Amino acid sequence: MSITKPSITPSVTHTSVPAETSVPAVSESRSQADRFLAVRGLTDALTASLSAEDQTPQSMTDASPVKWHRAHVTWFFEEFILRNDPSYVVYDESFRYLFNSYYEAVGARHPRPERGLVTRPGVADVGHYREYVDNAMVDVLERGALDDDVLALVELGCHHEQQHQELLLMDLKHLFSTHAFAPVYVERVADESGTPDPLTWRSVAGGVKEIGAGSGASGPGQFGAGSGASGPGQFGAGSGASGPGQFGAGSGSGFSYDNEGPRHRVFLEDFEIAERAVTNAEWLEFIADDGYRRPEFWLSDGWAHIRETGWQAPGYWQQVDGEWTTFTLSGRRRLVLDEPVLHVSFYEADAYARWAGVRLPTEFEWETAAVTGSSTRGQLLDPARCHPGRAGSTMIGDTWQWTASAYLPYPGFVPANGAVGEYNGKFMSDQHVLRGASAVTPRGHERATYRNFFPASARWAFSGLRLAR
Amino acid sequence: MSITKPSITPSVTHTSVPAETSVPAVSESRSQADRFLAVRGLTDALTASLSAEDQTPQSMTDASPVKWHRAHVTWFFEEFILRNDPSYVVYDESFRYLFNSYYEAVGARHPRPERGLVTRPGVADVGHYREYVDNAMVDVLERGALDDDVLALVELGCHHEQQHQELLLMDLKHLFSTHAFAPVYVERVADESGTPDPLTWRSVAGGVKEIGAGSGASGPGQFGAGSGASGPGQFGAGSGASGPGQFGAGSGSGFSYDNEGPRHRVFLEDFEIAERAVTNAEWLEFIADDGYRRPEFWLSDGWAHIRETGWQAPGYWQQVDGEWTTFTLSGRRRLVLDEPVLHVSFYEADAYARWAGVRLPTEFEWETAAVTGSSTRGQLLDPARCHPGRAGSTMIGDTWQWTASAYLPYPGFVPANGAVGEYNGKFMSDQHVLRGASAVTPRGHERATYRNFFPASARWAFSGLRLAR
Amino acid sequence: MSITKPSITPSVTHTSVPAETSVPAVSESRSQADRFLAVRGLTDALTASLSAEDQTPQSMTDASPVKWHRAHVTWFFEEFILRNDPSYVVYDESFRYLFNSYYEAVGARHPRPERGLVTRPGVADVGHYREYVDNAMVDVLERGALDDDVLALVELGCHHEQQHQELLLMDLKHLFSTHAFAPVYVERVADESGTPDPLTWRSVAGGVKEIGAGSGASGPGQFGAGSGASGPGQFGAGSGASGPGQFGAGSGSGFSYDNEGPRHRVFLEDFEIAERAVTNAEWLEFIADDGYRRPEFWLSDGWAHIRETGWQAPGYWQQVDGEWTTFTLSGRRRLVLDEPVLHVSFYEADAYARWAGVRLPTEFEWETAAVTGSSTRGQLLDPARCHPGRAGSTMIGDTWQWTASAYLPYPGFVPANGAVGEYNGKFMSDQHVLRGASAVTPRGHERATYRNFFPASARWAFSGLRLAR
Amino acid sequence: MSITKPSITPSVTHTSVPAETSVPAVSESRSQADRFLAVRGLTDALTASLSAEDQTPQSMTDASPVKWHRAHVTWFFEEFILRNDPSYVVYDESFRYLFNSYYEAVGARHPRPERGLVTRPGVADVGHYREYVDNAMVDVLERGALDDDVLALVELGCHHEQQHQELLLMDLKHLFSTHAFAPVYVERVADESGTPDPLTWRSVAGGVKEIGAGSGASGPGQFGAGSGASGPGQFGAGSGASGPGQFGAGSGSGFSYDNEGPRHRVFLEDFEIAERAVTNAEWLEFIADDGYRRPEFWLSDGWAHIRETGWQAPGYWQQVDGEWTTFTLSGRRRLVLDEPVLHVSFYEADAYARWAGVRLPTEFEWETAAVTGSSTRGQLLDPARCHPGRAGSTMIGDTWQWTASAYLPYPGFVPANGAVGEYNGKFMSDQHVLRGASAVTPRGHERATYRNFFPASARWAFSGLRLAR
Repeated sequence: MSITKPSITPSVTHTSVPAETSVPAVSESRSQADRFLAVRGLTDALTASLSAEDQTPQSMTDASPVKWHRAHVTWFFEEFILRNDPSYVVYDESFRYLFNSYYEAVGARHPRPERGLVTRPGVADVGHYREYVDNAMVDVLERGALDDDVLALVELGCHHEQQHQELLLMDLKHLFSTHAFAPVYVERVADESGTPDPLTWRSVAGGVKEIGAGSGASGPGQFGAGSGASGPGQFGAGSGASGPGQFGAGSGSGFSYDNEGPRHRVFLEDFEIAERAVTNAEWLEFIADDGYRRPEFWLSDGWAHIRETGWQAPGYWQQVDGEWTTFTLSGRRRLVLDEPVLHVSFYEADAYARWAGVRLPTEFEWETAAVTGSSTRGQLLDPARCHPGRAGSTMIGDTWQWTASAYLPYPGFVPANGAVGEYNGKFMSDQHVLRGASAVTPRGHERATYRNFFPASARWAFSGLRLAR
Repeated sequence: MSITKPSITPSVTHTSVPAETSVPAVSESRSQADRFLAVRGLTDALTASLSAEDQTPQSMTDASPVKWHRAHVTWFFEEFILRNDPSYVVYDESFRYLFNSYYEAVGARHPRPERGLVTRPGVADVGHYREYVDNAMVDVLERGALDDDVLALVELGCHHEQQHQELLLMDLKHLFSTHAFAPVYVERVADESGTPDPLTWRSVAGGVKEIGAGSGASGPGQFGAGSGASGPGQFGAGSGASGPGQFGAGSGSGFSYDNEGPRHRVFLEDFEIAERAVTNAEWLEFIADDGYRRPEFWLSDGWAHIRETGWQAPGYWQQVDGEWTTFTLSGRRRLVLDEPVLHVSFYEADAYARWAGVRLPTEFEWETAAVTGSSTRGQLLDPARCHPGRAGSTMIGDTWQWTASAYLPYPGFVPANGAVGEYNGKFMSDQHVLRGASAVTPRGHERATYRNFFPASARWAFSGLRLAR
Repeated sequence: MSITKPSITPSVTHTSVPAETSVPAVSESRSQADRFLAVRGLTDALTASLSAEDQTPQSMTDASPVKWHRAHVTWFFEEFILRNDPSYVVYDESFRYLFNSYYEAVGARHPRPERGLVTRPGVADVGHYREYVDNAMVDVLERGALDDDVLALVELGCHHEQQHQELLLMDLKHLFSTHAFAPVYVERVADESGTPDPLTWRSVAGGVKEIGAGSGASGPGQFGAGSGASGPGQFGAGSGASGPGQFGAGSGSGFSYDNEGPRHRVFLEDFEIAERAVTNAEWLEFIADDGYRRPEFWLSDGWAHIRETGWQAPGYWQQVDGEWTTFTLSGRRRLVLDEPVLHVSFYEADAYARWAGVRLPTEFEWETAAVTGSSTRGQLLDPARCHPGRAGSTMIGDTWQWTASAYLPYPGFVPANGAVGEYNGKFMSDQHVLRGASAVTPRGHERATYRNFFPASARWAFSGLRLAR
Repeated sequence: MSITKPSITPSVTHTSVPAETSVPAVSESRSQADRFLAVRGLTDALTASLSAEDQTPQSMTDASPVKWHRAHVTWFFEEFILRNDPSYVVYDESFRYLFNSYYEAVGARHPRPERGLVTRPGVADVGHYREYVDNAMVDVLERGALDDDVLALVELGCHHEQQHQELLLMDLKHLFSTHAFAPVYVERVADESGTPDPLTWRSVAGGVKEIGAGSGASGPGQFGAGSGASGPGQFGAGSGASGPGQFGAGSGSGFSYDNEGPRHRVFLEDFEIAERAVTNAEWLEFIADDGYRRPEFWLSDGWAHIRETGWQAPGYWQQVDGEWTTFTLSGRRRLVLDEPVLHVSFYEADAYARWAGVRLPTEFEWETAAVTGSSTRGQLLDPARCHPGRAGSTMIGDTWQWTASAYLPYPGFVPANGAVGEYNGKFMSDQHVLRGASAVTPRGHERATYRNFFPASARWAFSGLRLAR
């Protein structure tokens, strides 16, 4: 065994992790075991500074304890890869019950609203569990015995863990926000609030467009990766026909979730899309113009929701001594005016667009714009900096962007067989699609076809908006 | 004034109303006042047999008292047409507060969950209100003084009242279903349960299709009726370019709601759609196969919902002495096996389709099939018969059919100006589209482009499903 | 049969009912049938002016529809008296299910929160039911065939109906109060707001006191009527001297509920009790002194309750144009300053007393004061006047008065056998005792030993307070 | 400073703590500082084996995290004693907000339902806080500078901490019970299930009895300590003879809470009281006789509650493979038949008594029996054994016993001045009194006049019952 597994409990603090090198991009060439360990190592780095107390509670049903995230992503590898190895000895059979998230096919599981009450295993034992599974995974990967279907599940497991890296930061932010004295997770890099650039628009021509991940030329019924052929399997999205100008250009590895396919055609009218996200400065104008008090801007459900909740500003915003502040992973801070607005719900995003006299883009418009135009990449997850960059010419990074689209299956979508088929498909009702990626999305987890989704009222994600017309 | 207004409290009971003649189809030529009075008269006919007690309560927040429906549709004409007439004397200023449904632009209104507590005005006074407004409306219509924009609102008001005719029967059914002793609204026409026809499929070729109401040739940005030009206005959907084989062929009158437009293009793959709706007999097989107990068929929200509610069968179904019965407007009755299943939620429809190995059609597939194929018309509202016909080769009538589509604005959709702009647009989140029409949809209110919508869990509508693949 | 039953639907309106003569006092000598019909007639008189719509809804779970009250009190006689008569033909078997209130021993019953959805039987049919049962009751009473145990149940049924007369007015007041336009049940007798008398105190010497209804000289274990001997049974507590004709037998002390006995001894310290109830004028001082905003006056549960509900004044109070008004059965009106405060909860009464530096009396202190001192009688139910008199030297009448006592069984209390044993006993937890009687308590239903009870947060009863120290 | 403060984080585990010696009884003679440190040390001993994860969550609103308990009792000394010392430097001003429980007079505080979300300070910092306050307290006690009023508050603080020792074990038990795999807090001492003794009754003669803590010969208005005279004030009720050194002054009667006074007279009839508590064996008979399914035994609220919750057995009971088990601080175990039943609500206790044809004693009967008869003392808190002994002839220990009494102020009760006046008085509504003490009540905290109280539905206390008739 030539791979040396890095320590799972790095003695370095998160601020000293060299972000650019610690998170290998998908496109880099390295062995599967390296890739696996790199993803796992980032989870450890992100949580190393958190105490057992910080990792235990669950601040709302939608959120989960940090400790639970760390164990759940580990269970995923144990459940879907290692249990298929007859020589593997399960670490603790009770963990299947405790750390299954929502896979009905796997059996009974701990009630979600009570995840914060599971004091045992403790943080140290979860660390041992991670180490144990890491060793076993490295072992099977090194042996090279896994067939392509299972390797595809390893890849899925890595992306699953990356997804949870973002979720655990969202959940941690929510937990810390309930504390009266605003704990700091990471010190903020000092940068001053500036004046946002003026909003400009990009025109995109309509017509029949190809949407989604998968092999390019899709005739009816054709679904590249889903055919079970070689390649990374159902979750690897085909031949990587990404040309110049496309995100992840030349990556080839081309993983995608099942919900990003099949690649298919849609008809779009001509449209224009904003070159940058809506900023905090612009949102202040909406508030100043009584945006939260004028029903004409709001969907009926949205209006009912803000009356019930009393919302008068985005999530985590609070007026302190007459000035708007927001809670961040660096504590409570003054608003930075030229950053994208964060933590707005779909209702708020939609109302803002109506107030502005325009609309949200559909996810098809968004994707078409993302793959055809050119744009810089925004801030992605850097353990030393958990906040977006200044809103600029970027489609991906800084903030998730609500679209006008409901989260529905693409034509011809069929979930994967077995329990992992529950990964995405069963949530396709009453969720709204967000595109892009945020300042806490791990590098290598972002892509133009990525479909993030949340209910219309959710706003603990790093969610903003981009306008269209 | 040559028009004689019919009595608002017909001495004939609803069973003696000659249904075919009492509800003039939109396509027939007659004066506006006649058309208006015919619609109004049907409401009266439908409610004539109901006591003051029957008309007063509200059995759930989503439902409204019959009395309220009768007053609300009347208020609609008063608010949006008559109040613009300087000579009109408002019947009772308090009714604006009591009978506004959800128009924020009109001002404060009675809380929806308390509609059943409004004992005054009583049923008799609501009758006087109806008569008063009828007289005033006939007067303005006879005078011919209304311009096209206002005439379009009259047309909207008539369709609004037709919509409430269906709603009041849905709500009455729900109210009566809460009664331990199953009251009868209308005696059932005797017809026996038969064996449903075998399910057959129709193939429809894909490509770019035109969807929605409005003038045919839609270039980008073109929105026929919405342009404020002549014709029936925003709610009348343009030039009536309906060709042969289309429902309402040659009608030309062509009313549609704003949410049915603009007419626009979508790209569809080839698909097949079932020739008839799913029947009670088929639903019994789903139940027998433990359909309500196997999570693999259900959306996550749907599974959570049936576990919370304990649903094990469609709405109103109940096992009595080991046999399935359903509550109907003719009391509790044995299931008729070859009728379409009714009162299923979107969650159930979706789970059934997955159990059957197929799926629900999108609303675009449904509409494309409806306007291109040929099919008989099913049962529509007949005051003497409030149940569907035998499930047969019909797209429209008998039962609403859940589609796979979320209720979203069509590209280029802009709500009408003023309060009536709230009619449809503000509900475009977390609702699911149903197409077709049911056995309690008034004749003349059905059309191929009609977009009905309800939340995924709702099942007090006459809602069933049709399969696609 | 020499008795002529009065019409159950008096053509006179309630305002023309001569209150003093229409409600025979218990003490007057008249036949049992007369007594029965007099009680029944008052219910009819109180509800004659109410429409079917007014009588149908239920404005909260604790309240019931007027129609339901009218049918329920009738069912009580049918269930507990007439069904024992083999020759009696039940009016409608379904009514046992619909109009049983809470008697588990009688079997299944309609869910309480859905009483407002029972549209059938209608008001007219309930009227026929009342007439039918009245005739049957008069018949059995005239025949003189009932033994003493059953006659005691007739007496209980009459008091039960009287209790519901007050309840239906409480419930009607609540229903009407939800209406935006303040309906009037009875026109108010004009009388002006005056200045309340200064508060004076009565001293009562302590020692061992006898409390409750029953034969006087109570040795340990002695309990006159409760001993199971002959006589009117548990519900005719009296002196034991009750032979045939006991109800209305001129005893004056007469009837009492089982929860008023056994008569027993308690030890009291010396105390002082206020000569009159707390007035609206005094309550305004409490509000002005921030009584609702200072936690130091409130029980913990009370403080939580007013923060949750936002209460800032007694029930039905509302500031209109800067002036306090209250909703009454005569519509919304300015506060009358020298009337007793009404519609306060136990929490508020207790907080007021603490604010005033004193306390509420125990029910034993209250009763001792009521039977030893002299006081005028306040306003009782007069169909032409549903509001209290000016607060004066009265213990009984005008307003119920919260005491410091929890509603608990007296030593030796044993509920009656059979379903009527559920009348009072099963509510003996988490209720608080009120003493006195209110302006809507029927004459003949008030007495010094009467124990009314409600939860600490309830305030739809006509409930005020009297101070002690 | 001659006192050596013991380590606050004993390296010994709880099982090695010599229970008999570690908890000095109140009656023993030792210095105030020793007494203080002994109480503090027991808290540390009880929690030493619990991880940070175990100490963090809150499993229901009524419960609190172990960590919170440890900090809150410390804050009590800081708030009410040390802050009065001008030289004292507050450990952390934010703790006043975080660890105030319910004292309105102290100011804003962290919302109770979110105590489990306070991850910072962590367990280690709470340990430092405890040490810091201990040192400061020992310092002021050693200096002898505190006047009697403040010394009384120290004594109150010690009893407060003892009360929280029991609460933290109740709360920990609840938390652990939510875990699917039944964690063990302390290994159970092996003892076998036996056959309970037959139930025997003790007769107690009635008459005027003295009840409560305080000086004996109570004329009207006389209330020893409460009269504001010298002595430790309201919280050291005692004989009035308490000079300096009063707490632990060898009086025996010693300390009592304000709610146990004033001592006053009540009149009791003769009664009988059971010699032992109801056992698990007897409760199984109640279950077998359908006790949870027969409404005739239940108070109305209780019946509603068990139908809503589905309760069919006491708290923590569960049938495993057809056999009843219960969750204990030693994990899930078979029922021990001759132990007192635990974790029943007032509703269940009351229903059981009615099923048994008898009743619960009032708190006055209980206290009279406890102070006049002779009885052995049952199991009290022993860190090595957290379960009751075999039900035998004991009034105090093993299990709290629900009484028939509501928790109300004694005649003449006046809460203490200042924030500590909120300690007991403001909970005097809708709570029910329990008497005795349980297997997790610290030694020295039990007494015959002690009034414990919980709502009728609560059952996470170690609550059983004793019968009377």
